[in-house]
Order: sequence, then structure tokens, then C-alpha cells
Amino acid sequence: MSMSLQAEEEIVVKGNAPETPCIIIDSSVVDHNIREMAERIRRLGVKLRPHAKTHKLPEMAARQVEAGAVGITVAKLSEAEVMADGGIADIFIAYPIVSEKKLRRAAVLSRRIRLILTVDSLEGARRAAAVAVKEESTFEVRLEIDSGLHRTGVLPENALALAKEIHALEGIRLTGIFTYRGAMLDGKSTMDLRAAGLEEGRLMAVTAQALRAEGLPIADVSVGSTPTSVFAAEVEGVTEVRPGTYIFHDRMQAAYGVCSLEDCAATVWVTVVSRPSAELIVVDGGSKTFATDVQPNNPPLHLQGFGHIMGAPDAVLERMNEEHGMIRIGAHHPYEVGDVIQIIPNHICSTVNLHNDVYVTEPSGALRKTRVAARGMLE
Amino acid sequence: MSMSLQAEEEIVVKGNAPETPCIIIDSSVVDHNIREMAERIRRLGVKLRPHAKTHKLPEMAARQVEAGAVGITVAKLSEAEVMADGGIADIFIAYPIVSEKKLRRAAVLSRRIRLILTVDSLEGARRAAAVAVKEESTFEVRLEIDSGLHRTGVLPENALALAKEIHALEGIRLTGIFTYRGAMLDGKSTMDLRAAGLEEGRLMAVTAQALRAEGLPIADVSVGSTPTSVFAAEVEGVTEVRPGTYIFHDRMQAAYGVCSLEDCAATVWVTVVSRPSAELIVVDGGSKTFATDVQPNNPPLHLQGFGHIMGAPDAVLERMNEEHGMIRIGAHHPYEVGDVIQIIPNHICSTVNLHNDVYVTEPSGALRKTRVAARGMLE
Repeated sequence: MSMSLQAEEEIVVKGNAPETPCIIIDSSVVDHNIREMAERIRRLGVKLRPHAKTHKLPEMAARQVEAGAVGITVAKLSEAEVMADGGIADIFIAYPIVSEKKLRRAAVLSRRIRLILTVDSLEGARRAAAVAVKEESTFEVRLEIDSGLHRTGVLPENALALAKEIHALEGIRLTGIFTYRGAMLDGKSTMDLRAAGLEEGRLMAVTAQALRAEGLPIADVSVGSTPTSVFAAEVEGVTEVRPGTYIFHDRMQAAYGVCSLEDCAATVWVTVVSRPSAELIVVDGGSKTFATDVQPNNPPLHLQGFGHIMGAPDAVLERMNEEHGMIRIGAHHPYEVGDVIQIIPNHICSTVNLHNDVYVTEPSGALRKTRVAARGMLE
Repeated sequence: MSMSLQAEEEIVVKGNAPETPCIIIDSSVVDHNIREMAERIRRLGVKLRPHAKTHKLPEMAARQVEAGAVGITVAKLSEAEVMADGGIADIFIAYPIVSEKKLRRAAVLSRRIRLILTVDSLEGARRAAAVAVKEESTFEVRLEIDSGLHRTGVLPENALALAKEIHALEGIRLTGIFTYRGAMLDGKSTMDLRAAGLEEGRLMAVTAQALRAEGLPIADVSVGSTPTSVFAAEVEGVTEVRPGTYIFHDRMQAAYGVCSLEDCAATVWVTVVSRPSAELIVVDGGSKTFATDVQPNNPPLHLQGFGHIMGAPDAVLERMNEEHGMIRIGAHHPYEVGDVIQIIPNHICSTVNLHNDVYVTEPSGALRKTRVAARGMLE
């Protein structure tokens, strides 16, 4: 989607509340969150490459770059294509691409922007190298390290051997290593974010040293995550961080203590469609409106329900079907059919992915409807 | 979206496997599922009004109507608008609409198709009536009964009093009652679907009798759900059923014993992007690709993981992040980076909602890519 098309799809909604359910994003809170993270990371002498999965909006990526980010991170090739069309010129796809067709598309994209790919296996790297050679191109790649989350990535102790083999491949230029660990420590989620961040940073710094000692040109040492970035960035040898959620924040980050609920820029607006009993209201947003990937009552956060009900913090969004949200409330709450309620979702990234459009506040106070150009990009 | 626009967006993919992750729908299994349900319900002398939330595709709704359905059911006004644009002429919105703007849109829609709305409160009914009078229109409505799921709907014992008040409103024509209960019995999920269905049907039949005895013109007595429809339809007095999932079926329905895994028409295709250890493969579909609303290890189904891995039924899709699916496998499974795997998701309705497009098999064996026109319709 080109910038001009996106601009055409923007509709100014002045003085009219949008139909619910919808997401409304407070621009001034976004600006504050972008500026604060940029300053904290800059003070530590580290580069910031935010993950765009939270907002999925080229305009928000542009604001992050304007505030000092070196570029952005995405997970999928199709997201990179949308963001490049939106004017972003430096993109890291933090996800292994292994299909030949996608690698050919990546080669095309790498001719117009700085594109960095991910490798985490020799087989994957060979596939990328084969396409690069065929396309008379070179892929800049980073090797993914598994620092404890146990999904993609090579274990640190196996990184050197693999990095050497990858470095030897024609068509591949290995320039860095990266990891994503989030709030994980020793395979379990933790509330000690400082310890998790420092451990993540140290593991990556020493891994980079081991690779450089063998002559591998590791320039970038990149670590992840809104909850751990500012701690990992303290470690000498870490060169880049890739937080995502901080731009909007959400209830999960507030529960981690990373932000306050007032820092949450994106809220879901829903309408009460039924009050079948004094203790229950039903709103017009369920699991098609609020993501269900962060379930209530799980350690370490033990979130009550699927979101924070603004104005009624004791109310609990305790059950959802696809279109029904069941909120248990005290009988003293005066909600009636037709009332509009704002909810801070548990996980904003996956919630934004459910919405075709979001509304962004303008300095004038008007709401601007904008298409979420990079949502639903699965390829 | 008009039919012609939809047709333009169809792209024939011949002899080329689509990029993953994607949903592929087997047309012949769909035809079998549509025909079987239509015949079972017809034999019981009951009308079939399938819920379109499962497929969200006007072409599938048209196939259901062609096979004998009287019309379709949707949850949201915007879904009804898409389906009407796709040629469906009889639509029931099984969800209370309470906002004035939406009710005005409903009045517009009701001029070109038979549109039935939902009421479950006097306040909601008054809002609908006010718009109908202003628009010089009449809304055909059904009263929703809470038969045990405890979301929207009036309790059976309160239905008569409310129905009388609604019937008295100008601009409203109360023609039926409906409920959705699914596999719930006494507020808990059950494996005794026959008991759940019969109880649902009986409760509705006697509620309708009580309303008719007071002179209310209740023509339609409509009950829900793929697992309970065929049982509820046995009850004298039930006039209509609204199953949805049966068109594609899914792993949840197979676990209920409603279908076999071979009846599942829609599978998610993913690619192995990493095999970090002998016991773990990572695929390119996570919680953006597979819905997470039906969680593993919950009663009564106790599903292992987020989907059934075809060809490796002992493998478990045990963890997901947004783009990563972690499948625990036996070391004997030969999966390698680049392999494509088919997975039957736990819940197909909410999974389809995550995909902008699906691929449908044609009799020629080719795959036709088609936009999921009614996905993400939240309003």
C-alpha cells in the first residue's frame, strides 16, 4: 500500500464519536512514549530500532524514526513491504525467511531499502544464499540467538560454529547477532526485569566477543523488548534495542511496572448492549475485538480479566465470546444500555491486529480514522 | 463490498502452492457438510438459518441458501451489509443493536432485504423503535432468551413481561424468540450434547407457548449451534436452527464427537522455519494465524495444544507467540526447515477472522484465492 493510497483512506471524523467497538489512540501520549524511550536509549549510547508490530502503521514508524530511531523491526516480509511503501528506509525482519518465493521478494525489496534478514540455521542460510546468488544480490543477515525463550534461535554455545558456516556462504553478509527474551529468565516469566535485561545483554555481549575473536565481523548486537531494553542497554557491548509495545503501552506492561495506566495510549471503546442483571453488563466487543493471547490469571502477572475498565477498576471483563464481552460489575455502577466504556486491553499488539482501522486524535481534538496498513500481514 | 468487486479480487493460483501461513478450504468437504446438515434439518421439518460467522464469505452463504437454508444469521450490522451486497436476501442479526447510527443503517438495509433484528431489553427496543418511527420504517425483531449461557438475553421467566412491552412499541414487529446455548448445560460446558440440545429446545418451545397464550404473535422459535442443533430440532415447537461451524467443522467439533477430523474442510498451512532441537519445530504461524480463544487443557474437551497436526497426531502445537508456533514433536519425525505442514485449528470461526484471504479448491484442483469479505467487521 503506497502512502498516497493510505492518505486517501484517511477520513476525518470531526465531532462525531466513532461507532464501537473501535480503538482510539491518543497522539499526545504516543509522542510522550516515543520521546521518553528515545531519550533513555540515546543516553546509554545505544541504537533504537523499534518493533512495528505494536502499531502496524507507517505513520507511527515515521514518528519513531523522526525521534531518533535508526530504523524499524518487523516480523514478516509483507510487513516490511508495507513499511517500505510507507517511506521507512531501514528495516530488520527479525524472523527467519526460508521460502524461495519470499526470499526473491526480499531481494527485490533490498534493492530499494536497507533490509536485514534473520538466519538461525544452516539450512535456512543456504536457502537465502542460493536466492541471493541467483538474483546477483547480497543479503545482510543477523544470526538469531536463543537466550532462553526457546523458539527460533541457536543456543549461544552453538552460535560460533554456525556463524562460521554462515559467514562462509556466498551471497550472505553476516553483520550482527540478535535475540528476543522479553521478561523471561531461566525459561520462566519473571517480575525481575532488571535481572532479565542484564542477563540478556551480558549473554549477547560475550557471544559477540566469542564470534569476533574468530574473525567474524559482528557489528550489531541487538536485544529486545519493552520490559528489558533499558536494562539490557546498560551492558557494554550491546549496540541496539528493539522494544515495541512502549509506543502504546498496555495493561500487561503496566502490570510489569514498566509504565502507568496513564501511559497507555490506545484504548478500546465499546458500547453496553445489555445489562441482563445488576452484576453483569455485556459490551459489543469480545474476542474479535480484544486479543486472547494474554490470558487472565496466569503467572507472573495474574491479570484479572481481559482488560482494565477505565472508570471502574473493580469491574472485570471476565468472559468473552467472539462478539460478546461479559463484564462483572458491582451493582452500584450505573451503566445502562447505550453507554460507551473505554478499556485498556491486556495486550495491545495482538489487539491492534484485529482492527482494520484505528482512530488517532489530532491536535485539534478531532479523530482521524486511519487504515492499519500492516495488520493481518501473515506472509 | 459488491459481488463484482469480490470477483475481481479473486486470483486463480494454478499449480503454485500459496505462501504460508494460509487457510486452504476443501470445496468438496464443504459441499458434503452443507448437504448433510441441510438434509438432517429438513427431515425434522425445521428451517435452517446458518450463522455466517464461520466462513465470512458471501459465496459460502450463497451455497448454503442454494442447499435449502431460508437465509443466514450474522452477529454484526456490518456483516449483514457485506452479505446483502453479496446477494443474500434474508438476514437475521442475532445481536442487539443499540446505537442510533447503526439503527439508521439497519433501516436503510431493511428496505432492500428481509432483515430481522435482536432485542433483549426494553431500553434497547425503545431505541430501535424510535429510529424506526423516525425513518418511517418497521423493524422485524426477535427477543433473545438466555437459556444458560448468561451473556445477552432475558431470562425465560421474564420473557413474557418484556415481550408484551416490546410488542406494544410502535415501529417494532415482534415475530420470534431465539437463543444460543451451544454445549452449555446448567452454566457448564458438557459432552452430553443430546441433553443440552433437548433442554434448549424444550425451554424455547414452552417459552413460545407462554407468549402465544397471551396473544403475542411468535412465529419463529430459533435455537443455535452446531453441536446441539440436530437434537434441539427434534423438539416440537422449535421452528429454526442456526448452526455455524458445521460448514467447515474444526478440532473442537471433532472433540465433541460432532464430526470426524476428515470432515474438517479448512486447514491452516504453515512452513517449518526452524528446528532448534530434535524435539521442537517452529512454524511460521502463531497467534496472528491461529485463534487463541479456545485454549488447550480446558474442560470438557481437554484439547492438547492449539491444533491437530495432520500426519503427526502425537505432535503438539503447545506454545505460540504472534508469529511463532512451537510444535513439540518426537525426534523420529523427519521435519526439516522449509517443510509445509497442515494443521486443523481448535476453532475455525475465530481463525478465519485472522486471515484477509483464504484459498478455495476448485473442481479442477486449482486453488482460488478469495478475500474474506466479512472478516474484521466489528461494527
